[in-house]
Amino acid sequence: MPSTPKGTRDFLPDVVRKRNYIFGTIRQVFEKYGYQPIETPAMENLETLTGKYGEEGDRLIFKILQRDQKLQKALRAALNDGEQYDGKLPEKDLADIALRYDLTVPFARFVVQHQNELSFPFRRYQIQPVWRADRPQKGRYREFFQCDADVVGTDSLRCEVEYCQIFDEVFTKLDLPVEIRLNNRKLLAALAEYIGEKDRLVQMTIAIDKLDKMPLEKVLEDLRCQEFPEDSLEKLKSFLEVTAKDFSNGELLDEVSRLLGESEEGIKGVEELRFILEKVESLGLDSAKVVLDLSLARGLNYYTGAIFEVRPLTENQVGSICGGGRYDDLTGIFGMKGMSGVGISFGADRIYDLLEAEGKFPEKETEGTKLLFVNFGETEADYCHEQLVKIRNAGIRAELYPDSAKMKKQMKYANDKQIPYVALVGENEMEGGTLTVKEMTSGEQLNMNVDELIKKLS
Amino acid sequence: MPSTPKGTRDFLPDVVRKRNYIFGTIRQVFEKYGYQPIETPAMENLETLTGKYGEEGDRLIFKILQRDQKLQKALRAALNDGEQYDGKLPEKDLADIALRYDLTVPFARFVVQHQNELSFPFRRYQIQPVWRADRPQKGRYREFFQCDADVVGTDSLRCEVEYCQIFDEVFTKLDLPVEIRLNNRKLLAALAEYIGEKDRLVQMTIAIDKLDKMPLEKVLEDLRCQEFPEDSLEKLKSFLEVTAKDFSNGELLDEVSRLLGESEEGIKGVEELRFILEKVESLGLDSAKVVLDLSLARGLNYYTGAIFEVRPLTENQVGSICGGGRYDDLTGIFGMKGMSGVGISFGADRIYDLLEAEGKFPEKETEGTKLLFVNFGETEADYCHEQLVKIRNAGIRAELYPDSAKMKKQMKYANDKQIPYVALVGENEMEGGTLTVKEMTSGEQLNMNVDELIKKLS
Repeated sequence: MPSTPKGTRDFLPDVVRKRNYIFGTIRQVFEKYGYQPIETPAMENLETLTGKYGEEGDRLIFKILQRDQKLQKALRAALNDGEQYDGKLPEKDLADIALRYDLTVPFARFVVQHQNELSFPFRRYQIQPVWRADRPQKGRYREFFQCDADVVGTDSLRCEVEYCQIFDEVFTKLDLPVEIRLNNRKLLAALAEYIGEKDRLVQMTIAIDKLDKMPLEKVLEDLRCQEFPEDSLEKLKSFLEVTAKDFSNGELLDEVSRLLGESEEGIKGVEELRFILEKVESLGLDSAKVVLDLSLARGLNYYTGAIFEVRPLTENQVGSICGGGRYDDLTGIFGMKGMSGVGISFGADRIYDLLEAEGKFPEKETEGTKLLFVNFGETEADYCHEQLVKIRNAGIRAELYPDSAKMKKQMKYANDKQIPYVALVGENEMEGGTLTVKEMTSGEQLNMNVDELIKKLS
Repeated sequence: MPSTPKGTRDFLPDVVRKRNYIFGTIRQVFEKYGYQPIETPAMENLETLTGKYGEEGDRLIFKILQRDQKLQKALRAALNDGEQYDGKLPEKDLADIALRYDLTVPFARFVVQHQNELSFPFRRYQIQPVWRADRPQKGRYREFFQCDADVVGTDSLRCEVEYCQIFDEVFTKLDLPVEIRLNNRKLLAALAEYIGEKDRLVQMTIAIDKLDKMPLEKVLEDLRCQEFPEDSLEKLKSFLEVTAKDFSNGELLDEVSRLLGESEEGIKGVEELRFILEKVESLGLDSAKVVLDLSLARGLNYYTGAIFEVRPLTENQVGSICGGGRYDDLTGIFGMKGMSGVGISFGADRIYDLLEAEGKFPEKETEGTKLLFVNFGETEADYCHEQLVKIRNAGIRAELYPDSAKMKKQMKYANDKQIPYVALVGENEMEGGTLTVKEMTSGEQLNMNVDELIKKLS
């Protein structure tokens, strides 16, 4: 029996429709906020990708094998020196292109390559698959879609404000209650400075980023093992205890301001967060809550300002379903300096699982064929085919069972395909110019003409 | 300057929108005829793909390089036998997965793998990229989208009838006049029999398939070089001359029936074509013409019944823009016998080029942001941001320029992004609770409140 490669999936119609409902909802909101679609190739030059994801990431890039002479040349060059093979054949000679690992690096490459065709600030969204040679496990695949929006070429915090609106609008439409967690890299830097560990910002952050999964004492113990001095840990503890209290966002910012107010970065971080929170509050959100979370880090090395994370407020727990943040230098890796930006990403697979678990996929948005004509023979089929033209012209999805198979088989087909209405046309109907329409869930049968049917199904 | 790999393309927003207009139109029609979306992974196991596309095709498959130990093991195994490298390292050891080359083989694999989850006849469509390591040239890329519909598990010729309706509906919607050319493999077989060259069906067909590009004498000369005897060529010539006359489809079928009526296959082929043509005519098409073309072959080795091709009737000539046909044994390669089907494929890149050349992309379907608020400063921006909420709630795509940059820069941004309306809000507007709206093409400026604006833009 043939199968898909390890870690990859086929999507059957029902699943494609539900996925498209998610992507379509997100796309529609992105477009309303001025984000424009772009697409980049599945393949990038290997040199575009390597060195951008750390050693571990590089190892997970799928590379495309050289072909023909180039491949033979690479093998010969490395192997025909008369020595034993020493395991040092550079992979580079075997591959010079690779599958994209994410959408961010291709986007940076895109901005640099097309800088003279774009107008800045450039807002783009991109919904495409990426590939990673990760060990497959539940919920982790080797091919999955990313769903990103970014704006580059502006420092304006109004972009952050609008991302809160975008999160809110998408999850309101998807009928999922969520909270948007918000932090700022500058506060983390100020905190490291405050506890006297400015140079160990990353270690500190990695540790406190785990606060939603382990108790404070355990986090401090982690840092103790990394030889953070006791007075640093004491300061950190008191900071985290104070900021864990049940403050409003505003009160929490006042508190942070008091504690970190001597650091220039601290002041800047508080200012930025206050701006975002105030604007979001005055503009109003439909359903999402915005929560300050001073332990939120997410890919700290990358972000320089705001950090976002969205978590569902449902009984089903799936961790974060969106992330994002501001970066100061997206395109620097390709030699184009000073391109500040901010971006967000939706985790489509997790959102899918959540909507499924919560029963939140709307039937109407994900349904297929609405009406099946049962085929009783050539004469009846001719009659049905004519009706079909009218019904399809009215925009209704409808089909004729192509063969005059057994009734039972045709009804099973309608059931399997979840077609809600079946039309039965025999001699009586043909004489009367009507159709008998069966509603599959209730079993109710009604006789009507095609115009009445169109009205019913529209 | 970084770039995309050879033969691949970035798509900028304007192009993505236009492509999505094409895909969306086709998708909508497919769905109306009961076709359901599926998606398969970009990668397939190499063994799924090899041997399916002929030697030339196999050479063009992009393979994914093995990683880590598996790669090292493959190299060591082949090379550490102390001998000179003999160029015989099997590529198979270097790669066991590859990028799909088309959507047909993955679909066959899908049907076999999921046979117990599907209900037959199974109608699916699939719009996804494929990859071929072809030499790039004008209009030929290494990554391109295929856009296929197939139905498997039925012999009914009503499927062929509906494909004519689908072609018609898609190109009517796209406002492209086309002709649907139709043939049947059985007639080609009968013709080969008629000229006494039953065993050289393929050579004969390849030759006459060129009749739209070269004169009859040249085609016959080709066959003469392949040692077709003179009396065969004489018979072929008279057949092609007769059938090239200005017949109606019905008359042509009568003629063919007279000439090939002694062959069982000939009779069957005429019957099938007559059924399709009669049904299509009685159901009626909106704009497409259906034309019998007895020289049409398209991948003859594959098709067993009807053969389709769609050509534009525009001044801009781009060759065929769709193809398709019936096959008797799609899934036999994966051990599942007797699965007859028929499928069609739209050539999205050519359709794109044609719509562009003919100026047929509708502005409304491909436009982006509708309204830009110019940013004159924080106070004005606050006011604008509030209006934006109302405007977006009405479903209108609108944005605020994020920084209070120079007016000229902001207007250039609106121009570059082809935003048709710009809102200007200064002190007067804020006092009066209004907006000044500039129509970019006419330059006309009007003062109105936000409700009036929403009405204007909806």
